[in-house]
Amino acid sequence: MRNRKVPEVVVRRLAIYLRVLNEVDAAGDRYISSQELGERAGVTAAQVRKDLAMFGEFGKQGVGYQAGFLRDEIARILHADRTINFAIIGAGELGTALARYTLRRYENERGYPFRLAAIFDIDENKIGQKVFSVPISHVNTLPQKVKEERIKMALLTVPASAAQETVDLAAKAGLKALLNFAPTKITAPPGMRVHNADVSLDLHQLAFFI
Amino acid sequence: MRNRKVPEVVVRRLAIYLRVLNEVDAAGDRYISSQELGERAGVTAAQVRKDLAMFGEFGKQGVGYQAGFLRDEIARILHADRTINFAIIGAGELGTALARYTLRRYENERGYPFRLAAIFDIDENKIGQKVFSVPISHVNTLPQKVKEERIKMALLTVPASAAQETVDLAAKAGLKALLNFAPTKITAPPGMRVHNADVSLDLHQLAFFI
Repeated sequence: MRNRKVPEVVVRRLAIYLRVLNEVDAAGDRYISSQELGERAGVTAAQVRKDLAMFGEFGKQGVGYQAGFLRDEIARILHADRTINFAIIGAGELGTALARYTLRRYENERGYPFRLAAIFDIDENKIGQKVFSVPISHVNTLPQKVKEERIKMALLTVPASAAQETVDLAAKAGLKALLNFAPTKITAPPGMRVHNADVSLDLHQLAFFI
Repeated sequence: MRNRKVPEVVVRRLAIYLRVLNEVDAAGDRYISSQELGERAGVTAAQVRKDLAMFGEFGKQGVGYQAGFLRDEIARILHADRTINFAIIGAGELGTALARYTLRRYENERGYPFRLAAIFDIDENKIGQKVFSVPISHVNTLPQKVKEERIKMALLTVPASAAQETVDLAAKAGLKALLNFAPTKITAPPGMRVHNADVSLDLHQLAFFI
């Protein structure tokens, strides 16, 4: 199945299934039914079966899925079976907090694939400082670092006013995907995928329903 | 239109339209076409018209929408025309960074509706410390504070192991909506809406496509 044809909602559910399978004891002979996986993921058993059927046959009728095997298969489908190097662009409060947060998870969680390989900023006072073991580099060095560290994606935590130019620079440097925390709409250059993670959009979405 | 019937994707797009309208100079007689609004929001003009038509008639054929009027109408639809008090539960790095981030935006952005009214933690060393002007309170006092400050929703930034019990406590205290940053699935108690904002789910989603 060509990845570009898979709906984003399906990918998101796969990521949730993977988290569930990491949480349950997936060692040895543990089996999990689509019913249990669905309950833990917050969807129906039928949804689980339909999602997984898009990628192959992973379970047996009446027995369910071998949990460790299914976890490994989903990790492979999500490209999370290898280490994925990413960068954080913008070492303000949010960027720094996300750096610590992801570094901790990479350190402590078995199978956590996202390795923070570089942090960028333009503030000369910050350049050379470290977040845990990762130094803050000048954004000028981004193209070079992306190459050296084989960085594929980035979290964007720059001010709204600097967001678009930073995205363009990142795309030119070869980054393929970007998670945008800046509270502004950015246009994805050709060949780059951008998701928005502005917390205020989530707050608006919640506020509508209360 | 009953709010519970509106699809979440529509609400999310409304929040993006609102951001666009806050960005364009919405003063005076500025008009905006569904074409321009769509381009800036990253959707088609037809999508804009369809979304808005769910809530009323806001524009004129051939003229477009009066930008300031439309902004106010969308803010009203999203309940963002008044101040919405929220809390942050979990004053770790991510919680503290989100506190500073949202407080800054509330301070600096005209019409930003989300006011951080309280921060909670269980660590006695943190109780009484402040993030800007907002003190960190013990989570024991949550029910009382929720009442006093008319808090309606919260960001959850506690460790995964404490997430579910905190959600249950928050629901009992009367919170109606919760944005979950803890990297685990939580079950929403009846009457509470929970969204997931775990950054790793976003990273998985992006990694799939690169």
